[in-house]
Amino acid sequence: MFPGTFDPFTNGHLDVALRAAKIFDKVIIGVVKNPSKGVPVAAAERLRLIEKCLKGKAVNVDAEAFDGLLVDFCRKKGAKTILRGIRSNGDFEYEHAMSYVNKKLSGDIETLFILTNQELCHISSSIVRELIKLDADIGTFVPQEIKADLIKLYK
Amino acid sequence: MFPGTFDPFTNGHLDVALRAAKIFDKVIIGVVKNPSKGVPVAAAERLRLIEKCLKGKAVNVDAEAFDGLLVDFCRKKGAKTILRGIRSNGDFEYEHAMSYVNKKLSGDIETLFILTNQELCHISSSIVRELIKLDADIGTFVPQEIKADLIKLYK
Amino acid sequence: MFPGTFDPFTNGHLDVALRAAKIFDKVIIGVVKNPSKGVPVAAAERLRLIEKCLKGKAVNVDAEAFDGLLVDFCRKKGAKTILRGIRSNGDFEYEHAMSYVNKKLSGDIETLFILTNQELCHISSSIVRELIKLDADIGTFVPQEIKADLIKLYK
Amino acid sequence: MFPGTFDPFTNGHLDVALRAAKIFDKVIIGVVKNPSKGVPVAAAERLRLIEKCLKGKAVNVDAEAFDGLLVDFCRKKGAKTILRGIRSNGDFEYEHAMSYVNKKLSGDIETLFILTNQELCHISSSIVRELIKLDADIGTFVPQEIKADLIKLYK
Amino acid sequence: MFPGTFDPFTNGHLDVALRAAKIFDKVIIGVVKNPSKGVPVAAAERLRLIEKCLKGKAVNVDAEAFDGLLVDFCRKKGAKTILRGIRSNGDFEYEHAMSYVNKKLSGDIETLFILTNQELCHISSSIVRELIKLDADIGTFVPQEIKADLIKLYK
Amino acid sequence: MFPGTFDPFTNGHLDVALRAAKIFDKVIIGVVKNPSKGVPVAAAERLRLIEKCLKGKAVNVDAEAFDGLLVDFCRKKGAKTILRGIRSNGDFEYEHAMSYVNKKLSGDIETLFILTNQELCHISSSIVRELIKLDADIGTFVPQEIKADLIKLYK
Repeated sequence: MFPGTFDPFTNGHLDVALRAAKIFDKVIIGVVKNPSKGVPVAAAERLRLIEKCLKGKAVNVDAEAFDGLLVDFCRKKGAKTILRGIRSNGDFEYEHAMSYVNKKLSGDIETLFILTNQELCHISSSIVRELIKLDADIGTFVPQEIKADLIKLYK
Repeated sequence: MFPGTFDPFTNGHLDVALRAAKIFDKVIIGVVKNPSKGVPVAAAERLRLIEKCLKGKAVNVDAEAFDGLLVDFCRKKGAKTILRGIRSNGDFEYEHAMSYVNKKLSGDIETLFILTNQELCHISSSIVRELIKLDADIGTFVPQEIKADLIKLYK
Repeated sequence: MFPGTFDPFTNGHLDVALRAAKIFDKVIIGVVKNPSKGVPVAAAERLRLIEKCLKGKAVNVDAEAFDGLLVDFCRKKGAKTILRGIRSNGDFEYEHAMSYVNKKLSGDIETLFILTNQELCHISSSIVRELIKLDADIGTFVPQEIKADLIKLYK
Repeated sequence: MFPGTFDPFTNGHLDVALRAAKIFDKVIIGVVKNPSKGVPVAAAERLRLIEKCLKGKAVNVDAEAFDGLLVDFCRKKGAKTILRGIRSNGDFEYEHAMSYVNKKLSGDIETLFILTNQELCHISSSIVRELIKLDADIGTFVPQEIKADLIKLYK
Repeated sequence: MFPGTFDPFTNGHLDVALRAAKIFDKVIIGVVKNPSKGVPVAAAERLRLIEKCLKGKAVNVDAEAFDGLLVDFCRKKGAKTILRGIRSNGDFEYEHAMSYVNKKLSGDIETLFILTNQELCHISSSIVRELIKLDADIGTFVPQEIKADLIKLYK
Repeated sequence: MFPGTFDPFTNGHLDVALRAAKIFDKVIIGVVKNPSKGVPVAAAERLRLIEKCLKGKAVNVDAEAFDGLLVDFCRKKGAKTILRGIRSNGDFEYEHAMSYVNKKLSGDIETLFILTNQELCHISSSIVRELIKLDADIGTFVPQEIKADLIKLYK
C-alpha cells in the first residue's frame, strides 16, 4: 500500500511506485479522497492521472481512491505493509509519528520507508503546484504523459 | 507554568503535567485564549476539560486561561519557569526559538523542557482532531474522562 | 540577489544584507510581490520600509519588487548568485530543496547560504507579526527606523 | 538482507528481524566480520548469540557473517532488498547517505527502512556495552537468552 | 543534578549551573570520573577548576565527582531531577535517547533540559581543547578564573 | 578560502571548488596540515593530488597547506570569506557552530555555505576510504586523474 494525496502525482511518486513494484508482489496506490487540509482537484481526477502514468509500466501496480482511515483501507484490500517515500529529514520526522499512530490503530500493519531517488529528492507536489502558477517549465518534475493535464488543472 | 493551546488536551499533556507536579512546588497549566492560528473550541471549554482530567490527580496543579504575552501571564502569576513538553526534533527546533524570544522579552523567566513519555510521543492534538474526524478509536490518545466530550466537540 | 517576502523586514534581514554588501560587489534585495501563501501588506509598502532601513548604510545594496520566477528575475538583473540567510536546521532543510529546484530551472545560477548573526537567530517575520498583535516590545527585533510603521501596519 | 555489526545484538535488532520475517519470504541477518571501526568480539561469537536468540522464533530468518562489500554479499545470497532499522533522525541521516552509496555500487538492490518499535528506540549496541561496564541491569535491553553471555563478553 | 565530563568546564557550563541555581533549591554538578571515551585530565583536577569558577557565585551549587551509573549517584545524593544543557538539535537527539535509558533504569528520576544561552551556544569542550592546541585566544569561551590553568593542562 | 582536510579529495570537493571559481575572483583551497583527529596521508601528498585534479580546469583556484588557526591563514592570504560545502543537515549543524567560533575569533571574516551537487551528496572522504579498503569501484566518487593514486595510498 503506497498512500498519498498525490496533488499532483510527480516523478518522485512514479519512481517510488515502480521501484516498489520490483520488491513487492502487488502495489496499491491509495489516493486519499478528502485530506483534512483540503485539495483543489477531485480524487477521481487525481486517480485518472496516476493511471495514465502507470499504463504499460508495471502490471502489479493498481491505484484506488479511499475515504476514512488508512489502516481500514489496508485491511479491506488485504495489504499488510504501508510504503512511504521519504525525501528528507523533515519528511522522516512526520512519517515517524504517523507510523506509530498507525501501529496503535492496527498492530499487524507495518510501515516501511523507501528513499526517493537522489535525482528527484527536490520534487514535491507543493513545489510543482507553485511552479505551474509561475509558468515555470515542469518537464523534469512530472511524468511527460500528464504534464499538459496538470498545467490545465493547477494553473 | 505549562502553557499551550490544548486543542485538545491529550494523554501526552496529562503525562507532562503530572510529572511536573512531582518536580515543582506548583504547576499552572496556562491555556492560550486566542492563538494566532485560531482554534475551533472556546478557551473556557478547553479549560473545563483539563480540569476534568486533573480532578483528584495532583493537588498542586491548576489550570487557567490567559490572553496576551506568555511572559506577562508568568509575571502576574509569579511563575519563574516555563515548562514545555517535547516529543521530537521538530518540536525542539520551534521551542528553541520561542525560548530565546521569551528570554529577550523577560530575562528573568527561564524555559525548561521535558520529554513526552516514550509511549506517548506519537500523540499530538492535531492527530487527535484528525482521528476523531475519521471515526478512529482515540482511547489510547486522550484521558478516558474526556473521550466522549472530545468526540462530541471535534466531530 | 537576496530574495524574500520581508513581511516584515527584520534586524535579521538587515544584518544579512549589510554583511552581504561587504562580500559582494552588488546586492539586490528582491521582494516577492505575491507569494503563494499570501501577505497582508502590499509589496510597494514592504519595499518602502526596506529602503528606509538601508538609507545611508550601504551604497551597493538596492531593493526591488518582482513577480514570477526568482531565477527569471536573477537573469533579468544579471545576478549570478542567490544568497539566503539561515537561522536553523529547519530553515536549512527548506532552502536545501529550493536550491536544487532553482538549479534545475537555471543551471548557471548558484545559491549561497549565510548564517543569521547568533544574537538574532530567534527573530522571524512571523514572530514579529505575532508580537505586534500581542502589544510586545519589538525594539530588539526590527530596525528602529521602521518600528512605528510596522506597529501601524501589522497591529 | 538485514545487515549490521550486532556488537551486541539487542532487543531492538530482534524486534526488527521478527517483524521483517512477517513481511518478507526470507530474511538474512548479515553480520559484518571486520567493520572499519573495529569490534572487540569475533564475528563467529556475535553470530552464535544471534542464532541463540532466533532459535524457535522464526523459520525464515537466517544469520550469516560476511566480509567485503554489502552489495556483493547481497548478490551472492540473491537478496534484492536491504532492510535497515531506524531509531531516530540521526540514524536516518547516516542511512540516507549509505543507501545512495549502495545504489551507485549496485543499482538493482533497493534499501528499505523500518522503524524500531517505539518502546525500544532508546536501545543501541553502544549503550548496552556502556551499561554492562557500569554494572547496570540490561534485562530490558537485550534478549533474555543471551544476557549472561553478553555480561561475560563485554564486561 | 547537572552531570557531565567537564573536560574542560566552559562558560556554557557555568551559565547553565548559575541559571539552575535560581530555579532549583540545590544544584549538584556531577563530574564523571572515568567516561568510556577517556579523558586526558583527572577528575580531581576537573573538579578543582569547577570549584574555582563557582567560588562566591552561588551558595546552593556543589560539585562532586562520581563513578558508576548516573541514576545511582542521583539516588545516593537524593537528587530527583537530572538537568542537561542543550546547544543544538544534535545535542538534543543524543540527550533524548539517554533520558529514556535513565528512565528505564530508574523510573522516578526525571530529566529536564535547559538551553545554553544564545551567545554561548557555539562553545563546546572539544572546541575549547582544539583552540588551546592551536594557540587561539579562549578568553570568551571559558571563565576568566581558570583560563591560565586550562592552557597549561590542555596545551 | 575553501578549507578542509581533503583526506582524500573527492568529486564533491572538486565540484564545490569549480563552482566557487565562477562566483569568486579567487579561490584558495586550504589544506589542514595536522587535523586534531589525525590523518594517514601527509599534507604535501594530499596537496599534490588536489593540484593534479585542478590542472587546466580553473585558473583562479590555488591550493595551499596550512598550520594553526583557519582565521589566521585567511588573514595571511587576504581572504575575507570562508566557503564550506554542505551535503546534509548533519554537516550543517557542525558548520553552524564552527562559523560562530570563527566569527568570535575574527569578526571580519564571513562564512558562506554552498550545497554539494545533488548527484554527489552521498560522497564523503570517509566513505571513499572505506570503499577503497573493501576493493569497491570508486570511479564515480573521485576525480579520474587521482583514482589510481588514491587506491595506492589508502589501500
